[in-house]
Amino acid sequence: MAVPPRRQTRSPLQVRLAESVLSPGGWFATLDEFHRWLSETASRAYMNVRKVPLNGLSGWEVERHTGNIRHRTGKFFSVECLDVHVPGRTVSHWSQPIINQPEIGILGILVKEIDGIPHCLMQAKHEPGNHNGLQLSPTVQATRSNYTRVHRGRPVPYLDYFLDTSGREVIADIRQSEQGAWFYRKRNRNMIVEITGEIEVAEGFCWLTLGQLHTLMSVPDLVNMDARTVLACMPFSGAGLTSALMSALISAQTSAPSAEPGDGFRAALVRSCDPGEAGPHTMGEVLSWITDMRTRTDPRVSLIPLNEVRGWRRTDELISHETGRYFDVVGVSVEAGGREVGHWDQPMIEPSGTGVIAFLVGEIDGVLHALVHARVEPGYADVVELGPTVQCTPENYDHLPAGARPPFLDEVLGAGPGRVRFETILSEEGGRFHRARNRYLIVHTDEAAGIDHPEYRWLSVSQLGELLRHSFYLNIQARSLLFCLTTLTTTPPAPLAAR
Amino acid sequence: MAVPPRRQTRSPLQVRLAESVLSPGGWFATLDEFHRWLSETASRAYMNVRKVPLNGLSGWEVERHTGNIRHRTGKFFSVECLDVHVPGRTVSHWSQPIINQPEIGILGILVKEIDGIPHCLMQAKHEPGNHNGLQLSPTVQATRSNYTRVHRGRPVPYLDYFLDTSGREVIADIRQSEQGAWFYRKRNRNMIVEITGEIEVAEGFCWLTLGQLHTLMSVPDLVNMDARTVLACMPFSGAGLTSALMSALISAQTSAPSAEPGDGFRAALVRSCDPGEAGPHTMGEVLSWITDMRTRTDPRVSLIPLNEVRGWRRTDELISHETGRYFDVVGVSVEAGGREVGHWDQPMIEPSGTGVIAFLVGEIDGVLHALVHARVEPGYADVVELGPTVQCTPENYDHLPAGARPPFLDEVLGAGPGRVRFETILSEEGGRFHRARNRYLIVHTDEAAGIDHPEYRWLSVSQLGELLRHSFYLNIQARSLLFCLTTLTTTPPAPLAAR
Repeated sequence: MAVPPRRQTRSPLQVRLAESVLSPGGWFATLDEFHRWLSETASRAYMNVRKVPLNGLSGWEVERHTGNIRHRTGKFFSVECLDVHVPGRTVSHWSQPIINQPEIGILGILVKEIDGIPHCLMQAKHEPGNHNGLQLSPTVQATRSNYTRVHRGRPVPYLDYFLDTSGREVIADIRQSEQGAWFYRKRNRNMIVEITGEIEVAEGFCWLTLGQLHTLMSVPDLVNMDARTVLACMPFSGAGLTSALMSALISAQTSAPSAEPGDGFRAALVRSCDPGEAGPHTMGEVLSWITDMRTRTDPRVSLIPLNEVRGWRRTDELISHETGRYFDVVGVSVEAGGREVGHWDQPMIEPSGTGVIAFLVGEIDGVLHALVHARVEPGYADVVELGPTVQCTPENYDHLPAGARPPFLDEVLGAGPGRVRFETILSEEGGRFHRARNRYLIVHTDEAAGIDHPEYRWLSVSQLGELLRHSFYLNIQARSLLFCLTTLTTTPPAPLAAR
Repeated sequence: MAVPPRRQTRSPLQVRLAESVLSPGGWFATLDEFHRWLSETASRAYMNVRKVPLNGLSGWEVERHTGNIRHRTGKFFSVECLDVHVPGRTVSHWSQPIINQPEIGILGILVKEIDGIPHCLMQAKHEPGNHNGLQLSPTVQATRSNYTRVHRGRPVPYLDYFLDTSGREVIADIRQSEQGAWFYRKRNRNMIVEITGEIEVAEGFCWLTLGQLHTLMSVPDLVNMDARTVLACMPFSGAGLTSALMSALISAQTSAPSAEPGDGFRAALVRSCDPGEAGPHTMGEVLSWITDMRTRTDPRVSLIPLNEVRGWRRTDELISHETGRYFDVVGVSVEAGGREVGHWDQPMIEPSGTGVIAFLVGEIDGVLHALVHARVEPGYADVVELGPTVQCTPENYDHLPAGARPPFLDEVLGAGPGRVRFETILSEEGGRFHRARNRYLIVHTDEAAGIDHPEYRWLSVSQLGELLRHSFYLNIQARSLLFCLTTLTTTPPAPLAAR
């Protein structure tokens, strides 16, 4: 059968994305269908994860002279040590275990129009660090070791669409960093590729609209970190997108005026997606501020042997900080049934406590802006990246004087229910982190114009999107939160009374 | 006396820059006046540079265990060794001496309107590597060692305007790389800051319009490398700039039709400054291509002790390659009279031969495009940067088989006189490189649409300008050439007969 001819004149990408946001779905007519599918998929696969001593992991060895933990093939990743000096900080010198994984992996989402509406091909996938089994991941989530088949697993489905994109529409394609506190210069290639024509949907995969994904973001621990970072790279900006979303908003308000709180929050958010709206800073000013922060900050970071780490305890079982805070390095033994390789051991990072990752947002001249923080993490390739307003594990500050508490933490934690616009517990990368979960929050303030701090700036959604076209401006937490923020363009804010 | 009030409504920056390009000058009414001023300035300062043995430089030491050459204070820079693996290349493994200078310096140009026309504050400055004494440099050219006054010299004039920009218009402010073949991850902050109000012009400084600087770019070894990289960061793009330059071009052709060759080259170049003109690749496609080149290329680069370098000869006098090619590391003793410190010794890199740095340019759908090369140099912070079509020292390839010659080198060197639109010998950074000179060429081809090579892409001036808002996309040679290219928007191409 011949492939149907491609439409000669399609709407601009931003308008088609707005249509996907506004669509209740085509492949799954309702989200109930999706949840049934997810349960069925879960029943066909399992992953058993047991903690085992770090020093006895099958396939891994502790290097005699360095104490570093590496795979016997030299592939995958290693656990090494970072020695960090950040002049001028309260804690200006420390060392810590860190994951070194220099290869660049691919995180890719395939997009295809179904009944004229763009859908994303998502995969329900087990990861050893997930506390709840399956999570929704991108179409492809492949390390170079994966796709050169070092672990002799099955081939990665759909990978070829990302290895050779010729003749396809590449919607996004950019290297982005991951957790700079736990990874040494880890980067993945975030790709969104649109295809036309027929494609088989493999076991464990499904098509979802952006609107469906927006709604699913309020389900705890469902949309995984890799999916969130790729979805954040979807170009969610443009006058066409703004006017499509604004029309939808107006007609919703007209048909059911009481369903919508009258505070204009969502209208301000939609306007924030329009690059034509002026804000407190031009892009030139934002770029100059980033240059200044990156030039002023002069951290000295070097990889040193793990047996030279200071302030950490190492046993046969695990490595942990003397205070018990921050994180442990643990070992796990994994037994998987389903699509993945049957059995392996690996080290993982297990953070202590649940972190708080929050944007403070507010209207400036009627346009919603988010407060970003120029943040130093030792593992960043380029010194400083923009992070959320708050990104920390509050317990880690309990033993320190009040002055050491991160700015805006108390404002975020103390926000009344009417100000919390988004709140979901979400998981971090389950392939390297064991049960790493964070509370993602978007907190509204009426005082945006009054907040002025040299390490923070108010940016619009469109400005954040412009930075996301390039590498290493927005950190992984800010990218996740940006995607959380865009979900509020269509799903109603949580009802005030119910919180 | 009160400062005159700032004009309430100024033209957009791009239009004001076009006015500066079209202006014959205000501070110097003619370039003859400038040349007289330069001669007088030269007569009031001198710099004597003598080659001396590398192992006996006053203030410098050879580290016992590494053989590295460093300043006794630990400041300025050191000469170390880079061990380089680039899998898949003809020469895939080598080691070489390299300059390590981790601190980020400032290269800054002050801009100010004189009689309503933006002028740049330039400095006539001696550098030890200059073969001709004074060259035109930016307002400020300061390493961190300079401005923390490690060498106990005089304070750097005008530096404060760049250390604190609050309340001023920051026209450009971005970290950019320098020569990745000679520097290990060297970056400087390129800044252009506009001021209003009175300012004293210090000895050795002068105000020039962009039009005057464009004309002076055809003088050999006059506008130095640091000036060229900052001037390249001037945002030379926009519909307003294009229409101002196009009007000037049309009225010049109307008033003196014979003065202008009728080939439309300049009109195509002016159109290339308009971001609204479509080209063969969208910015999304260009960014995806860069991501792909950076992901595919996996060089392994590490600093090793200089006494472990292979293939190089080291004597008390100098370090040179066994073949005599590439470059030497030499020592110089400098005696300066004038504004700078009186006497110092330092190591320098002295390249062999004169390099060729060339853009092949051609019209695609009536818009001029330049052919850029995704280029690996071992000292880049981020693997690959975009360089000129050709960047090499041809003699270095004489002993290699024809297949090893850089692509497009023969096309550039064999171009007939009618195709060479720009040709000037220009110097590289005289503070680190001894008599490093390159032949900068812009060569026109009628065959642009037919050239297709996976490591090369055709980009417009506007696209190159868009990349220049961000760090580490365009290498130093491409930035210099881009500025050379923009000079052709106003100065006529060299007459065909005279070449």
